[in-house]
Amino acid sequence: MARAVAAFGEVMMRLQVPGYALLSQSDTLQVSYSGTGVNVVSALARFGHTGYLVTTLPANAIGDAAVANLSKLGIQPAQIRRAGAYVGMYVLENGFGPRASRVTYTNRQESSFNTAPEGAYDFAAVARESDIVHFCGISLAMNDTVRRHVLAFARAVKAAGRLVAFDCNYRPALWGEGGYAKAKPWYTEMLSLADIVMMNEMDALHILGMQSERETRREQLEELIPQVSAAYDISVIAGTHRTVNPDNTHSLQGYIYKNAAFLYSDKLTFPVYDRIGAGDAYTSGIIHGELEGHSPETTVRFAAAAAMLAHTIQGDTPHSSESAILRAMDEGNGDVER
Amino acid sequence: MARAVAAFGEVMMRLQVPGYALLSQSDTLQVSYSGTGVNVVSALARFGHTGYLVTTLPANAIGDAAVANLSKLGIQPAQIRRAGAYVGMYVLENGFGPRASRVTYTNRQESSFNTAPEGAYDFAAVARESDIVHFCGISLAMNDTVRRHVLAFARAVKAAGRLVAFDCNYRPALWGEGGYAKAKPWYTEMLSLADIVMMNEMDALHILGMQSERETRREQLEELIPQVSAAYDISVIAGTHRTVNPDNTHSLQGYIYKNAAFLYSDKLTFPVYDRIGAGDAYTSGIIHGELEGHSPETTVRFAAAAAMLAHTIQGDTPHSSESAILRAMDEGNGDVER
Amino acid sequence: MARAVAAFGEVMMRLQVPGYALLSQSDTLQVSYSGTGVNVVSALARFGHTGYLVTTLPANAIGDAAVANLSKLGIQPAQIRRAGAYVGMYVLENGFGPRASRVTYTNRQESSFNTAPEGAYDFAAVARESDIVHFCGISLAMNDTVRRHVLAFARAVKAAGRLVAFDCNYRPALWGEGGYAKAKPWYTEMLSLADIVMMNEMDALHILGMQSERETRREQLEELIPQVSAAYDISVIAGTHRTVNPDNTHSLQGYIYKNAAFLYSDKLTFPVYDRIGAGDAYTSGIIHGELEGHSPETTVRFAAAAAMLAHTIQGDTPHSSESAILRAMDEGNGDVER
Amino acid sequence: MARAVAAFGEVMMRLQVPGYALLSQSDTLQVSYSGTGVNVVSALARFGHTGYLVTTLPANAIGDAAVANLSKLGIQPAQIRRAGAYVGMYVLENGFGPRASRVTYTNRQESSFNTAPEGAYDFAAVARESDIVHFCGISLAMNDTVRRHVLAFARAVKAAGRLVAFDCNYRPALWGEGGYAKAKPWYTEMLSLADIVMMNEMDALHILGMQSERETRREQLEELIPQVSAAYDISVIAGTHRTVNPDNTHSLQGYIYKNAAFLYSDKLTFPVYDRIGAGDAYTSGIIHGELEGHSPETTVRFAAAAAMLAHTIQGDTPHSSESAILRAMDEGNGDVER
Amino acid sequence: MARAVAAFGEVMMRLQVPGYALLSQSDTLQVSYSGTGVNVVSALARFGHTGYLVTTLPANAIGDAAVANLSKLGIQPAQIRRAGAYVGMYVLENGFGPRASRVTYTNRQESSFNTAPEGAYDFAAVARESDIVHFCGISLAMNDTVRRHVLAFARAVKAAGRLVAFDCNYRPALWGEGGYAKAKPWYTEMLSLADIVMMNEMDALHILGMQSERETRREQLEELIPQVSAAYDISVIAGTHRTVNPDNTHSLQGYIYKNAAFLYSDKLTFPVYDRIGAGDAYTSGIIHGELEGHSPETTVRFAAAAAMLAHTIQGDTPHSSESAILRAMDEGNGDVER
Amino acid sequence: MARAVAAFGEVMMRLQVPGYALLSQSDTLQVSYSGTGVNVVSALARFGHTGYLVTTLPANAIGDAAVANLSKLGIQPAQIRRAGAYVGMYVLENGFGPRASRVTYTNRQESSFNTAPEGAYDFAAVARESDIVHFCGISLAMNDTVRRHVLAFARAVKAAGRLVAFDCNYRPALWGEGGYAKAKPWYTEMLSLADIVMMNEMDALHILGMQSERETRREQLEELIPQVSAAYDISVIAGTHRTVNPDNTHSLQGYIYKNAAFLYSDKLTFPVYDRIGAGDAYTSGIIHGELEGHSPETTVRFAAAAAMLAHTIQGDTPHSSESAILRAMDEGNGDVER
Repeated sequence: MARAVAAFGEVMMRLQVPGYALLSQSDTLQVSYSGTGVNVVSALARFGHTGYLVTTLPANAIGDAAVANLSKLGIQPAQIRRAGAYVGMYVLENGFGPRASRVTYTNRQESSFNTAPEGAYDFAAVARESDIVHFCGISLAMNDTVRRHVLAFARAVKAAGRLVAFDCNYRPALWGEGGYAKAKPWYTEMLSLADIVMMNEMDALHILGMQSERETRREQLEELIPQVSAAYDISVIAGTHRTVNPDNTHSLQGYIYKNAAFLYSDKLTFPVYDRIGAGDAYTSGIIHGELEGHSPETTVRFAAAAAMLAHTIQGDTPHSSESAILRAMDEGNGDVER
Repeated sequence: MARAVAAFGEVMMRLQVPGYALLSQSDTLQVSYSGTGVNVVSALARFGHTGYLVTTLPANAIGDAAVANLSKLGIQPAQIRRAGAYVGMYVLENGFGPRASRVTYTNRQESSFNTAPEGAYDFAAVARESDIVHFCGISLAMNDTVRRHVLAFARAVKAAGRLVAFDCNYRPALWGEGGYAKAKPWYTEMLSLADIVMMNEMDALHILGMQSERETRREQLEELIPQVSAAYDISVIAGTHRTVNPDNTHSLQGYIYKNAAFLYSDKLTFPVYDRIGAGDAYTSGIIHGELEGHSPETTVRFAAAAAMLAHTIQGDTPHSSESAILRAMDEGNGDVER
Repeated sequence: MARAVAAFGEVMMRLQVPGYALLSQSDTLQVSYSGTGVNVVSALARFGHTGYLVTTLPANAIGDAAVANLSKLGIQPAQIRRAGAYVGMYVLENGFGPRASRVTYTNRQESSFNTAPEGAYDFAAVARESDIVHFCGISLAMNDTVRRHVLAFARAVKAAGRLVAFDCNYRPALWGEGGYAKAKPWYTEMLSLADIVMMNEMDALHILGMQSERETRREQLEELIPQVSAAYDISVIAGTHRTVNPDNTHSLQGYIYKNAAFLYSDKLTFPVYDRIGAGDAYTSGIIHGELEGHSPETTVRFAAAAAMLAHTIQGDTPHSSESAILRAMDEGNGDVER
Repeated sequence: MARAVAAFGEVMMRLQVPGYALLSQSDTLQVSYSGTGVNVVSALARFGHTGYLVTTLPANAIGDAAVANLSKLGIQPAQIRRAGAYVGMYVLENGFGPRASRVTYTNRQESSFNTAPEGAYDFAAVARESDIVHFCGISLAMNDTVRRHVLAFARAVKAAGRLVAFDCNYRPALWGEGGYAKAKPWYTEMLSLADIVMMNEMDALHILGMQSERETRREQLEELIPQVSAAYDISVIAGTHRTVNPDNTHSLQGYIYKNAAFLYSDKLTFPVYDRIGAGDAYTSGIIHGELEGHSPETTVRFAAAAAMLAHTIQGDTPHSSESAILRAMDEGNGDVER
Repeated sequence: MARAVAAFGEVMMRLQVPGYALLSQSDTLQVSYSGTGVNVVSALARFGHTGYLVTTLPANAIGDAAVANLSKLGIQPAQIRRAGAYVGMYVLENGFGPRASRVTYTNRQESSFNTAPEGAYDFAAVARESDIVHFCGISLAMNDTVRRHVLAFARAVKAAGRLVAFDCNYRPALWGEGGYAKAKPWYTEMLSLADIVMMNEMDALHILGMQSERETRREQLEELIPQVSAAYDISVIAGTHRTVNPDNTHSLQGYIYKNAAFLYSDKLTFPVYDRIGAGDAYTSGIIHGELEGHSPETTVRFAAAAAMLAHTIQGDTPHSSESAILRAMDEGNGDVER
Repeated sequence: MARAVAAFGEVMMRLQVPGYALLSQSDTLQVSYSGTGVNVVSALARFGHTGYLVTTLPANAIGDAAVANLSKLGIQPAQIRRAGAYVGMYVLENGFGPRASRVTYTNRQESSFNTAPEGAYDFAAVARESDIVHFCGISLAMNDTVRRHVLAFARAVKAAGRLVAFDCNYRPALWGEGGYAKAKPWYTEMLSLADIVMMNEMDALHILGMQSERETRREQLEELIPQVSAAYDISVIAGTHRTVNPDNTHSLQGYIYKNAAFLYSDKLTFPVYDRIGAGDAYTSGIIHGELEGHSPETTVRFAAAAAMLAHTIQGDTPHSSESAILRAMDEGNGDVER
C-alpha cells in the first residue's frame, strides 16, 4: 500500500571528479544533488510511496537545478522552501584499490537549509499528511537552529500520531573534538521520540556512552541494542556491519531488532562502484518493510539487498526498483538481461 | 588463404549508456552498429578474408551512418540494399557486480531488414561469389518473410556448392511463449542445410526436443551432439559452456565435434568488459579454422581465445587480429606492450 | 493564479548529434524526451501552473527514463499510463549556416502512445480536474485510434466546461500525399471544439481549403482568420510568421486575433541555438496570457518573447521563467548577469 | 625587460555549464580557477614578467587543484598561503543571443582568502621584491579584514618605493544597497595610494559622487578623469567603454589619460566567446605598456587588442602572447595560420 | 556514370582541440585522418564513384585506425601500402573571431608516406584501373623521393591514357625560403602532364614567375590563366577567390577556364565552421563535373556549392551528397528538414 | 629538508585512448605530457623539494602546452630550453584483463630534445644549483648526441660535488637487435659516475653481461648486485620485482642495497589503474629517502608504497603526497575519507 513519507534534511550539490582522476587532474566535474533525506525518500518513491522532502533551497539557478533533479529522482517538491542564498557542496574524488575515495566539503553552515530561521516550516501540516518522517543525525551536527527544527518536527510527528524514523549517522568530522558529549543530549531526545532507529553497537558505545565487556562486534550489538530499545521505547532498531576486504570488495550484513529478537541477513560480498549513500538504501528497505508489514526476516534481507545494489549505482541516491531488489535477494550474478 | 565470406542478418543500432549509469541517469548515449552477421563477418575480415554483409538499411542519415560504420569495421558494403524506413535499435545499460546488464529493445519488426520483401535479394549471385555464408537463429525469430529469406539463401548456397554456417542462437524473448514448437521446423530445415553449426546440448534439448538421462552438461553434450550431427549430416558442430563466477569473472570452455570426436579448449577465466557479441567471436574462430584447414584442436583453442578477447573489447564486434589471438592462446596476462 | 493544465500527446526520445557533426561522424548522442504536449505543459508549469501530461509510455527502462525526465521538466506524471512496448524516437543533426538541420524519425506508429487502445484513458476524470487541455495536430496525423482519442478527450473537456486549446501544426511528411484532404474532417471537428487555436493563413488555405486573392501573408491572414474564428466559434486564434534571414538569424512576429481585433508583437530578430519546439513556447505564452486574463497586446508580446528565448535554449522544451520573459520583452541584449 | 609583478586577490573556482545549457540541464561542469589578480598576473607572466599572487587557499584537495592550475597559468605559487577551509565558487551559465549569461555565486565570505586574519601576510617582504602590485575593488567589497589587508599592502608597496595599480571594479551586488557610500572612503584611500588606476566616468560619478553636466559618456570622461587624476595624484588612469551591439557583437574602445592627455584606441568590434575576465586583459596591457615604457598610444592600442583577444579565449584568464596581440593590433580577421 | 578515381597523397592524423580552447587549456583531442587525396577521393566516392587512395601507412595501431577511418569515409583501402613506422600529425586549435585558427605540425618527413622507397608502388597497375588520378602540390613539397613518385605516377597515368588532375596547393611553410625557385621545375613538369589543374593567378605569378600589369585579381586571373592553359596544354583550369569578411563570414567565388572561356559561380557568403579541406571539396566538384560531362557553368556552380557546404562540416573531409549540393545551389538558408 | 633536484630527459606527449577502447574505435584522445625525468622530479616536488627539468621543447603551441602542464605538475620550468621543432609522442591503448595495454610511438628521433646540439645546455650551472641530478637509460638509447649530453651532464654533477642518480631502464625496442652490446659501454660509464642506481639482476645479466648460476631471481639479485656496487663504487642500488597475477592484480616488492646489506619491502599486491610511470614513483621514493637521511628500511618501504599508489593514479606522473604514502605504508584498503 502506497504511503506518504517525508524526510527532513539538507540537499547538497555533489561535484564528482569523473573516473579515477584527482581534482587537480580534471577540468570537468559531474554534478548531482543528494543528501540522506533525498536518498531515503527517493528510494521509497521508487517502491511506490509518495515522497516529500522538507528542506530549504535558494531561489536561484542552483536551487532551480536542485529542485529539477530532485523531481527527476521521484521526489515531490511541494515541501521545499525557496529562501536563503547557498547550497552546501562537496567534491568527491573516487579512490582506486589502496587509494581511498576522498570527500572535500565546502562551507555548508551558510546554506539555505542551515540558515532557515525558527518558524520557517509548518511542521504540523507536513506531519498530518505523512505516515512516517525520516530524520538523520547529520542534521543534528549542523547548528542549534537546525537541531531545534529537528526536534520540533519530530515532536509534531508524534503529536500527529505518525512514525518517526531516525538514523544516528554520527559524523565525527562534523561534531569535532568532544563531539560525543555535545551530541548525546540531542541524540537521546531523538531516540526517545523515534519508532524506527538506524544504529549499531558503535553508536551505543560512543554516543550514548554505554559499556560492554564483550569482545566481538556481534556480541556487543546483541548486548547493547536491546538495552537501547528498552531505554527509549523503540520498536525497531536496525543497522549493518561493513567489512572492506583485501580484494577491495565490501561485505555487508544487516540486522534488525524487533519484538525482542535479532534477525540477520546473509553476509553479502560485492564489488563497489559508488559507496556513498548506500547506507540510506538500507534504511529505505527497513522503512519499506515496516510500512508494508513484512516479517522482520524479509525486511532485513530486502534492506541488505537494497544496500548491496546501491553500491553498484552511480551517485548517492538509490535507483533500484522493488522487483530488482527482490531478484537480487534470490539470485547470484547473472548474464545480460535481454 | 583469404576467402570470400558473407553473412545474412540485421544491423542494429546499439545505444549504450556510458559507464555504469542507468538510462534515466544519463543524457548521452554511445552509438554503434552491430548484429550477429556484422560481428562474424567483421572478425573474419580482420583475419584476412573478404567479408560481405547481406542486409537492408534505409536510405537516410541512419542508414548512411550504419554503412559508414560497417565499412570502418572492414565489411564490404556492396551487398547492402538501401530500402525501407527504419533500423532496429536497442539500449544497453551496463551492469556492475550483482546488478546485471540490461538490454531494452525498440521496435525491430518494422526495420528495413525485417520488411524486405520476397525477391529483394539476388541470393544466387551472392552465393556464387562466397566460400561460406553465415546465418543466425535470430533471423528465424523475426517473421515469415525473413525466415523464407534465410531458407532461400541457404538453399542457394548449397546449390552453388558453398558452405552454410548456422548459429542456433535461440532467443526466448523473441519467440515468446510456445516458442520452441514454433521454431523447431525452421531450425530443422536449417540444420539439414548446414555444414557448420553453433549449438550446445540446451539447443538439442529445447529446440529439437531431444531427451537425455545424463546429469552433467558435458555428459548431455557428448550424448546429444553426435546424434544431431548424424541426423542432419553436419560436418562440424561447435559451441561453448559459460559460467558466471561469484567474483564476476566469466569462465568459458569451447568444444568442437568433428569426425566423430570431441575436442575441448581449456576452460578460460577472465574479467568481462563487454560481454555482448563475444559468442560471435567464437563462431568466427571456428569458421576461420575450418576455412584455413586447421586441426580441430587448434581451431577450438583459437575460437575460445578469440571469444575471451572479445569480452575485453568495447562494443559488440570483435576487434582482435589473428596474431593477437595466437598470442592470447599461448600467454597469460602481460605487462604493457611497448 | 495557478491553474491546472493538461496536454494530450506523444513523448518522443530525441537523439541529438552533439555540436555540428553528422550522425555518421559521431559515436555519441545526446538524449532528451520531448513532444508538443511536453513542451507546452512544461512551459506552463514554469509559469506557476500545475501541468499534467496525458500519454502512454512503456513500463521499461526507456519509459522510466522518460518519466524521470518529464518530472525534471516540472510535469506531474500522475496521468501517464505505463503500457505498450516502444517510444518514438528521432535523430537530430544540427545544421550550420547554409546546411539545414536534419531530423530522421524512427518508427513511431508502434509506440506506446500510438497503440493505446480505445478506452485506455479516463478522459472525463482528467477533464474535470483541468482548467484547459492542449491538443496538437501532430496527434491527428498518427492513426485512427489516436484521432479518436483526441476527439473523445476534447469532447470530454467541453462536456466538463473547460477550455480546449488546439495547435494545427500540420506536418506534410506525416500525412503524406493527399494529406490535406485526409486531414480536413479531423481538423474541422477539432476547430469546432476549440477555444484557443494556433494557426496562420497557410493552415486556412491548405487544410481548410479556403481561398484568398490577397498577395501578402499579412493580408491573407487578416482576411482568413476572422472567417475561421466566425465559422468555428473560436475565441482566440494566434500564430507567428517566421523568416530565415540571409545571416542565419530568424525573425519572428506573433499575432493574436481576439474580440474581432488583430494585435501583433514586434518583429523580433535573433540568432538561433535550437529551433525545435520554439513554436510551443509561443503557444504556452498565449495560453498563459489567457489563463491570467492579460490584455491581448501583453499576451502576444509575452508569447513572442517566450518563443524568442526558446530559440536560445538547448532542447525542444522551453526553460524560461516568467520573469526572464518579462525582462526580454523590455530589454535588448545584455552583458553578464552577476 | 622582465619585471616582478604581484597581485593581491581571491582565487575563485569557476564552475561553467558546458555549451549553452542551463545548470538544470547539465550534469557536467567545467572547472577552472580565476580571479582578477590571477588574470592580471597570468597575462603579465605571458608577456615575460615574473608573476606572483598573494592570496590564501586551503590545504586540501581544492586548494591543491587551485595551486596546480595557477602554476599552469604561469603564476609563481611562492606567495600563496595555505590556510583556512574554503574556496569561493561561482556557477556560470553561458548566454546565447538575447539570453544573457548568468553568474550564481556560492558563499565566498567564509573562504580562506576572506578569513585570513590580520598579520597573515608579510606584505613588506613581497613589496620589496615586486616592481608593481595590483589591487582590485572586488577585494574592497569583501569585509573589513580584507579591506585592511588591501590598504596595509598598498602602503607597504609605497613604502618600498614600488608602484600600486588599482582597478576600481565596483560590483553593486557585492556592496548591496547604499554601497557607494560604504565604498567611498576605502576607494579614496586606495586612489590616493595608486599610481595606475583603472576606472571610467561611471566610477567617478557613482563611487566618488562627482557631478557632470555633460551628456555623452566621452564628454563626462574627459571632464571627470583629469579631476580625479589631479585630486589623487595618479600618474595613469585608463579604462574602456563597451557597447553590446544588436547582432551580439561587442564594441570596445580603450582610453588612457597620462601627462594631462587622453589617448584612445580604435573602437574594436568583435564576436564574444567568453566575456568574463576580458577587462583584466585590458589592465594587463596597460601595466605592461607602463612597465616597458611604451608610448601611451601604443599602450592603449595594445591593451585594447589584448582585451579583444581575451573575449575569444575560453575561461576568465587571458592566454595571448605579446606577439599575438601585436599581430591583432595590425591585422583584421585572418585565414588559418599554418 | 560511376568511375574509378584515385589519388596519391599522404594521410595525416589531425588532432583537434575541442571547441575553441587552446592546446594548453585542453586535456582531450579529437582525432581524425585526412589529407588532400583523402578529401578529394572521399568526396568523389560520396558522388557515386569508386575511390582509391594510393599511399603508405604503418602496420601498427595508428595505421590500423587510419585505414578503418578511411574506409568509413568511403575510400577503398586496396591500394594502401602498409610499411614504414610513422604517420604525420598536426594539432589544430580553432580560432574565434579575430583570433585565427592555428595549425602546429609534427614531423612528417619520417612518415611512412614520405619514406616509401622508389619502386614501392605499382603505379602502372593503378593507372590502368583508374579513370582519373589526383595529385597535390603538397606532395611535391616533401622530398625528392616523393617528388619522383608523383612524376612517375603521373607519367604512368598518361601512358595508360587516363586523366591527370593536379592541385597546385603551394604551401610556403613547407618549401621554406627560396621555395618558389625550388618548386618551379617540379610544378612545370606536373602542369605539362595535367589535364585538370587547380590554381589561380597567385600560383601563376609566384610559382611560375609570370608577370602581370593588371591591378585586380580578376584581371590578373583572366590575363594569366589562358597563357598557362596554352603553355602546358591543360584542358581545364579552375580555382577560387576567397575573402574573409569583417563579420568573420567568408566569401568564395569559383571560376573555371575551359575551351578558352571563363565561367564564374556566384560569390557565395557563409559562416565557417571548419575551414580546413574546403578547397578539396571544390576540386572534387570540378572533377565530378568533368567526369559526368556537365557544362562548365553547372560544374563551377556545383563545385562552389560543394566548397561552401564543406565549410559547414566538421573535419577536413567533405561529407555532402550530390543531392545536398544540388539543393544548396538552388536555395538559401532553410528551416529544419524533417 | 627541501633540496634542489634536477632531471635530464625527454618530455613526451602521451595520447591516451579513453576507457578501454582501441584507437580505431575512438575519436577522442586524452593528452598529457610526461617522461621519466618529469615523473621523478614532479614526485620529488610533491615531497617538498624544488624540482627542475633539463630538457628542450619547441617554441610552438605544443611546447607551450607542455611547459604549462609541467608547471601544473609542480616542476620549475627555468631550465627548459625552447628550440627545435617537435615533441615525441605516443599513443596508449589501455588493456583489459587478458588484453595487454599497447603503446605505439611516433617518431621521437627528430624531437627538440633528441636534436639539441652539443653545447646547448649549461650543465655546469645547473649542477652547481642542484643537490642531485637524475638520469635515465632511455636517454642513452636515443642517439650519440644525447648520450654525450648525458655523460657531460653527469660529469659536471660529479665535478660540482653533487649526487648522480641513474635508472638503468633498458628498453629493448629502442636499442634494437644487438642492443645490449651497443649499450654496455655507455651504461658502464654512467654506473661509474652514479651514486644511486636503479636496477635489478636482469640488468646485470643482460646489459653488463654478468653470469649467475643461481636459480631464483632473488638469489641472482643477491649475488650480482653487491658485485655491481663494488665494481662501480655505487652507494645505493635499488629496484623492484614485479609479478602480474592471474587475477590481473600486480605484486611488487622493492629492495635496496646499501652499506653491504639488502633490505626488502613487503610484497605489495594491488589492482592497477595506470601502470605507466609507476617505476619512477619507486625511484622518487628512494631518492627522497636518501635526501632526507631515512633508514634504508624506511626508504624501501616508502618507495614501494609510492610505487603502489602510482598504479592507482591516472597518467604517467605520480601525484601522491608524502603523507598519503606514509598512510598507505601503514593501512590496508579504507572506506571513504570524509
